[in-house]
Amino acid sequence: MANFGGHAIPGSFFLLLGFWLTVKHVLQHYWRTSQPKGRHIMPPFFKKMDFLEGGFIIFGSFVGIMIEQFVVDGPHAHLYDKENNSWVKLMNWQHGTMYLFFGICGIALVASSASKLVPAGVDRLALSLALFVEGFLFYHHLHNRPPLDAHIHSLLLVPVFSGSASTMLEVFIRDNIILELLRACLFILQGSWFYEIGFVLYPLSGPEWDLKLHDNLMFITMCFCWHIAVALLLVSCISSVVWFTVKRFSGRGRDIEIGMRSTSSKASSQKALLEESDEE
Amino acid sequence: MANFGGHAIPGSFFLLLGFWLTVKHVLQHYWRTSQPKGRHIMPPFFKKMDFLEGGFIIFGSFVGIMIEQFVVDGPHAHLYDKENNSWVKLMNWQHGTMYLFFGICGIALVASSASKLVPAGVDRLALSLALFVEGFLFYHHLHNRPPLDAHIHSLLLVPVFSGSASTMLEVFIRDNIILELLRACLFILQGSWFYEIGFVLYPLSGPEWDLKLHDNLMFITMCFCWHIAVALLLVSCISSVVWFTVKRFSGRGRDIEIGMRSTSSKASSQKALLEESDEE
Amino acid sequence: MANFGGHAIPGSFFLLLGFWLTVKHVLQHYWRTSQPKGRHIMPPFFKKMDFLEGGFIIFGSFVGIMIEQFVVDGPHAHLYDKENNSWVKLMNWQHGTMYLFFGICGIALVASSASKLVPAGVDRLALSLALFVEGFLFYHHLHNRPPLDAHIHSLLLVPVFSGSASTMLEVFIRDNIILELLRACLFILQGSWFYEIGFVLYPLSGPEWDLKLHDNLMFITMCFCWHIAVALLLVSCISSVVWFTVKRFSGRGRDIEIGMRSTSSKASSQKALLEESDEE
Amino acid sequence: MANFGGHAIPGSFFLLLGFWLTVKHVLQHYWRTSQPKGRHIMPPFFKKMDFLEGGFIIFGSFVGIMIEQFVVDGPHAHLYDKENNSWVKLMNWQHGTMYLFFGICGIALVASSASKLVPAGVDRLALSLALFVEGFLFYHHLHNRPPLDAHIHSLLLVPVFSGSASTMLEVFIRDNIILELLRACLFILQGSWFYEIGFVLYPLSGPEWDLKLHDNLMFITMCFCWHIAVALLLVSCISSVVWFTVKRFSGRGRDIEIGMRSTSSKASSQKALLEESDEE
Repeated sequence: MANFGGHAIPGSFFLLLGFWLTVKHVLQHYWRTSQPKGRHIMPPFFKKMDFLEGGFIIFGSFVGIMIEQFVVDGPHAHLYDKENNSWVKLMNWQHGTMYLFFGICGIALVASSASKLVPAGVDRLALSLALFVEGFLFYHHLHNRPPLDAHIHSLLLVPVFSGSASTMLEVFIRDNIILELLRACLFILQGSWFYEIGFVLYPLSGPEWDLKLHDNLMFITMCFCWHIAVALLLVSCISSVVWFTVKRFSGRGRDIEIGMRSTSSKASSQKALLEESDEE
Repeated sequence: MANFGGHAIPGSFFLLLGFWLTVKHVLQHYWRTSQPKGRHIMPPFFKKMDFLEGGFIIFGSFVGIMIEQFVVDGPHAHLYDKENNSWVKLMNWQHGTMYLFFGICGIALVASSASKLVPAGVDRLALSLALFVEGFLFYHHLHNRPPLDAHIHSLLLVPVFSGSASTMLEVFIRDNIILELLRACLFILQGSWFYEIGFVLYPLSGPEWDLKLHDNLMFITMCFCWHIAVALLLVSCISSVVWFTVKRFSGRGRDIEIGMRSTSSKASSQKALLEESDEE
Repeated sequence: MANFGGHAIPGSFFLLLGFWLTVKHVLQHYWRTSQPKGRHIMPPFFKKMDFLEGGFIIFGSFVGIMIEQFVVDGPHAHLYDKENNSWVKLMNWQHGTMYLFFGICGIALVASSASKLVPAGVDRLALSLALFVEGFLFYHHLHNRPPLDAHIHSLLLVPVFSGSASTMLEVFIRDNIILELLRACLFILQGSWFYEIGFVLYPLSGPEWDLKLHDNLMFITMCFCWHIAVALLLVSCISSVVWFTVKRFSGRGRDIEIGMRSTSSKASSQKALLEESDEE
Repeated sequence: MANFGGHAIPGSFFLLLGFWLTVKHVLQHYWRTSQPKGRHIMPPFFKKMDFLEGGFIIFGSFVGIMIEQFVVDGPHAHLYDKENNSWVKLMNWQHGTMYLFFGICGIALVASSASKLVPAGVDRLALSLALFVEGFLFYHHLHNRPPLDAHIHSLLLVPVFSGSASTMLEVFIRDNIILELLRACLFILQGSWFYEIGFVLYPLSGPEWDLKLHDNLMFITMCFCWHIAVALLLVSCISSVVWFTVKRFSGRGRDIEIGMRSTSSKASSQKALLEESDEE
């Protein structure tokens, strides 16, 4: 959707996802480091979070596909127009394909949370694949555009493919807080860069940008680095706030572990719960 | 062989290989997870499967080389035509070279199953190399073709080189079910894409595709992503079916391990068998 | 800053950093290998060194940003000139951005030395990112320059991106002396190559270089390899000198460990110190 | 040196090195697998082999540099001709630079064999670097050549850069027989390809090759794959022959270990030797 809104929607989605991943992984990291060594079992609370996250991603992807198909100027599920011998609204179909893979990623997340039969790492593989497909389609999007338009979109490929690579690494190196926060950071970067694309290509106010001026390309390249710095700053601040909040609450005489559990279950004893989560 | 059949034959081969690898690796994974921790010995049943697979690949490669050489318009083992000062049917020779490396891969599989002297991982290295050579020759194939023809063949390089890289990784990270199923998935993708190439370049019915229309390239790029999604779906479905079938059979009072062994040996006791397989 | 000084300043900075890293990592390696296996605690001396290094990097980056902004022909914190509708001194802003990321890297180093809450490896990730941003901005710097100018700058990307990759590897493989010295070596190479760029593009004496002569490009390529050899030689010599100096001092009846500690603390007993550093 | 001999000499060198590495690493692998688990100490015999290899490489590099400098039409240690304002014989200087890095690699091998202070892996890093520099200089060699000449030289980069990457991997994954034999195989491939370049560009008999014919490029690409297959075959055959020869000798009542040691030392007892090698 070639307007400001069409870039603000995925931008907001990725920003939210990035913030959420930061909070989630800092909580998980706090849990891991505060537990005695022998216990590696995550409390059911985290499983619920994963279900919620997966469900949200599936829902978002489904809505995204529906919108791309059935907006006023969408393809309405028609792929090929036999009368004119032409494809119908391929751009919308391509965006729908991107959503589809994020949907698959949501399903993989739910499946790997629900069942121990699904091998650990499938959710990360699916996410890595979804990012790869997004980058792959974007990359073949860029032909025949004015220089600044092509450049600003190609910069989007940096967080997309880096995210795909770092998530692929997480298939093998699990529970590494640096990789997890790096992933969150790359999502925030992607989100904020979507907004930047929107502001540059469809300025809300002020004059249009000259899409061929070399100085504009140089500024955008530098601006991208500033977005990286801001994303780093945001992730560090959120992480610190979450960490110290959790620590303070768990320090006030209530064990964080119990606090967390009490949100999910009340009557059962601690040990029973652990065994349950082990067998699920 | 520039016709539909020439793409359907390798397509079918890779599809079959992909399905077979899915079944085999899910069975092996079931075996690994259902065994107590101390035992890592595969039953002879799996070794027989590897022999069969290796033999099948060697046979297929040999037949492939023979067909490429001795079809009616083939080179008939002539490489250079001294009268005309020209190479004879280089395309067929190149296809034969690809088959040769899959043959080497089959030999490596048989050798590493037959003898413990062959270091573990040689079969994966040979497979990785066979895929690399396939991609390498395809890559140098693509010059001077119409845009859609070049593009649709270059998309084939994605599963080929990804497969080569992920198989190379398996030399070092062994018995990782995700990598194994990823490999199977990439073979299925490669096979189905061979069919797609056949359908697009040599349509069985209907009008020819316009090989220069940019919209066709955009559709094909997207279509490739749909093939990825279908390959993922197929691998997940087959894996689930195989897993639950095996589980049900082994749950009916017959230990799957014994069931498997009884196909290879009857009179010997379980322990003797294990020791045997250890010494082979 | 397009003159000899503008290349000599970062060159000196990177040379100094490379020498310093060599000394630091050889000392750390000596400490690691001379300790009994069970003890992995670095003495407070090393922590102080990291504080110093981080503080120095932060200070240097701050000064660098200030100079780039407020030199006579600098942008003086103006980014966009609304009267002329043009960006103001983008080159200086880009250099300032590079310094900014080295500043972030310094902050990460101080933070990860100061607190155990910061996960190990954050300092390396930040350094890897700073080098990536440096290379990324340089890479988009190179358009529309004469061949030799573009080539000599693109050779700079070799140590920058190699350094970024090897430092990223250090996030996962820590305390590997080879990687650490490789990093030092790449910084020295980068520093000496900055000087080489200065000498070639802004010769202090003698005739100007012909920026289009192909032979000059070939010589510069080879000259880069000689710089690699010299950097290797320097790192090996410094490492040997530091190693044998430390060994000789610690062999003279004074334990190196105690010698080191006495510089940081006098009255407290050895054990108390170790426990302290553990709890900080 | 642009003639057949100038390609046959490095070709022979790399072929020999490849054969030698195959023999050495199979012997080391035999030793490792035939030892009980607790003992990882290599007998002095292997250390002597490393000294010999290192000395041979240093000697070869030195001779290579001398030849490149002082052949009849060489630069005779003159780099810049001030009278004509031109560089003197840059090609010879570049080849000399390649030899220099192989010389450094020899020194690293000798140093890491001689002293335990040199961290394990330095020899592999130096070899990886030598191959990188070789490929780096070759890559910048290729401009402005006829298509077949450029293509056949660029194919040389495949074994060179693959060798550099796989050797770099060996810095971290040591004593992996697959990586070691892969390295040997890539050296053999490089050597045989040097011969192929010689045969194609400077044919000993018969007509000259048409350097612009596309069919020749296609044949050469395929021919490269055949070289890979032959290199694989050679490495497998040599490995098998060495393995079974060693096994047969060590099976004839003489322990291979003792047999090996007796070549290096006679009077000292086995245990003393082991301790010695430990302390060296």
